[in-house]
Amino acid sequence: MTQSITISLDAMGGDDGVDVVLGGAEIALKRQPDTRFLLFGKEDLITAGLKAHPALAAASEVRHCDISVEMDVKPSLALRQGRYHSSMWRAIQAVKDGEASVCVSAGNTGALMAMSRFCLRSMPAIERPAIAAIWPTLRGDSIVLDVGATIGADAEQLVIFSVMGGAMARALFSIQRPTVGLLNVGVEEIKGVEEVRKAGQILREADLPFINYIGFVEGNDLGKGTSDVVVTEGFAGNIALKAAEGTARQIAQYLRAAMEQSLMTKIGYFFAKGAFKRLREKMDPSKSNGGVFLGLNGLVIKSHGSASHEGFASAIGMGDAMARNNLLKKLSDDLEQFRNVLKNEPKSKD
Amino acid sequence: MTQSITISLDAMGGDDGVDVVLGGAEIALKRQPDTRFLLFGKEDLITAGLKAHPALAAASEVRHCDISVEMDVKPSLALRQGRYHSSMWRAIQAVKDGEASVCVSAGNTGALMAMSRFCLRSMPAIERPAIAAIWPTLRGDSIVLDVGATIGADAEQLVIFSVMGGAMARALFSIQRPTVGLLNVGVEEIKGVEEVRKAGQILREADLPFINYIGFVEGNDLGKGTSDVVVTEGFAGNIALKAAEGTARQIAQYLRAAMEQSLMTKIGYFFAKGAFKRLREKMDPSKSNGGVFLGLNGLVIKSHGSASHEGFASAIGMGDAMARNNLLKKLSDDLEQFRNVLKNEPKSKD
Repeated sequence: MTQSITISLDAMGGDDGVDVVLGGAEIALKRQPDTRFLLFGKEDLITAGLKAHPALAAASEVRHCDISVEMDVKPSLALRQGRYHSSMWRAIQAVKDGEASVCVSAGNTGALMAMSRFCLRSMPAIERPAIAAIWPTLRGDSIVLDVGATIGADAEQLVIFSVMGGAMARALFSIQRPTVGLLNVGVEEIKGVEEVRKAGQILREADLPFINYIGFVEGNDLGKGTSDVVVTEGFAGNIALKAAEGTARQIAQYLRAAMEQSLMTKIGYFFAKGAFKRLREKMDPSKSNGGVFLGLNGLVIKSHGSASHEGFASAIGMGDAMARNNLLKKLSDDLEQFRNVLKNEPKSKD
Repeated sequence: MTQSITISLDAMGGDDGVDVVLGGAEIALKRQPDTRFLLFGKEDLITAGLKAHPALAAASEVRHCDISVEMDVKPSLALRQGRYHSSMWRAIQAVKDGEASVCVSAGNTGALMAMSRFCLRSMPAIERPAIAAIWPTLRGDSIVLDVGATIGADAEQLVIFSVMGGAMARALFSIQRPTVGLLNVGVEEIKGVEEVRKAGQILREADLPFINYIGFVEGNDLGKGTSDVVVTEGFAGNIALKAAEGTARQIAQYLRAAMEQSLMTKIGYFFAKGAFKRLREKMDPSKSNGGVFLGLNGLVIKSHGSASHEGFASAIGMGDAMARNNLLKKLSDDLEQFRNVLKNEPKSKD
């Protein structure tokens, strides 16, 4: 297999459309000069935009699409209007057809998920896909899933998410047997929902060779990086992700206000500028931009709609890394092996 | 009604027991010198501890209890072993008997909830209580509930939580008609769980005079302070609270590391010390320590088990403020009025 890979981009997706997509792709191309891009969208806009990016233009092929999916349209309507013809659909279709290894879009999340499911279909025996996010922690990055695709996942789905998250950690972080924790609440009276408990029991008894299940983790373990992979259903996962992002923004604002308070603090800021720069880099959400759709017969990455050039480049970079590391193959191997383990497992005694 | 109030304290609760409870009560007493305390626990330990706090000793009455509830015992076992006799139970019982206006404990959350429910019983027509937390935001404090008592609350419970959270906001923040938002996920495809949608519909149609329902809010609205009250079921609420706390700790650690990096940053830190002090105060979790049990026939506050003296004093202060502002009366009035509104409401058309 050649190292060069092709990535399909929905050039019309996101709040700023073509500009951010091309700017991001240009940065990604500098990092991985052997990448090729398929750019789907309005040809005149893309061609005009590419004038400022000659290197990208040389590595890209433009495919004209009349229809773009609006950012706030309902997924069902997007599917009705945009199926087969929209830039979003055709970028996904390129993955299905084997023309591209991964598709990246900053468009409408619901529409992207609906079209991805419709076009790529789920992997065998996977009922619902998950969206995985990279979570920066004190111990390096973790993978958290699901952050919004499957509300109220049942025990089996949580187990499948664990296997998928583990495969992603092996592909992205090169860890042989990543640690996996199930997100739960620590109030003793309730000891978490039935589904989470049941998923924990299945994982403990299966004792899979490719993931190391470490038990329940709580909300505060996310930032600590207690496990390489944290698994939860989509409602709590989405709220946890956004609550953490909101807290980071809140503290950044406090810090800015505090540093502007007096001459002394301004002098302090001047001397400590390097430290603040490093802190900003640590907290930069664009570095971990990109939700990965897992469980489909193809790789699709959702970038934040309001991502910067740098943020969109990160989303491309994540897709690139997963494609080069054969995430899909790892995923289906792990799922296959998981099913075999379950089949050969003696039934639980309790 | 006299302004002086009596607070019952479980002197044995928390990781550090008597020391933190007495230290915290001493601080709280300085802030509200007309407070009286009932201290439940091992008499010899408490009496010995009080020697260092003569003012507190003068304002307190010690009630000996042989049994203490362990921090990690199961609630069912705690209830079996500690009912009627433990320091935790008797501190709650003092509220039931009208001897104290509010009970504060840093003990085992599950045991405290189990005993509170068993001893105080739920208010009429309230199936499950909620735990409410104070959430510091860019716009001042908000109230978030439930953060761990009722997993998977249904639509009616979410509506009741909205009414209770509103009453608490009126009592604590002196807002006439607090804004209330329902926590939901923003991914369009799924548009949130059925229960949240249904609760939103009930609140919109009821158009209650004492709360201003503003619709759905997302995880990042918590830090922004988009609404005075944020309502969710206990699983997502608990995880959001801990994810945000974890993120705050994580950033504080990054910041510390960044400021120690070089001579320049150390000089900067020296000049900007005042700013960092203000930031630390803003982020100080002890300032918003205390989960309030809502929906019972009596006020119980749960302090963090690892709270500092200052943190335990905050929990006492919160209980004090709610008792002085007649939270229980406001709560039952609002619930009564809410039921009347629902009764007179014509049935929804859709």
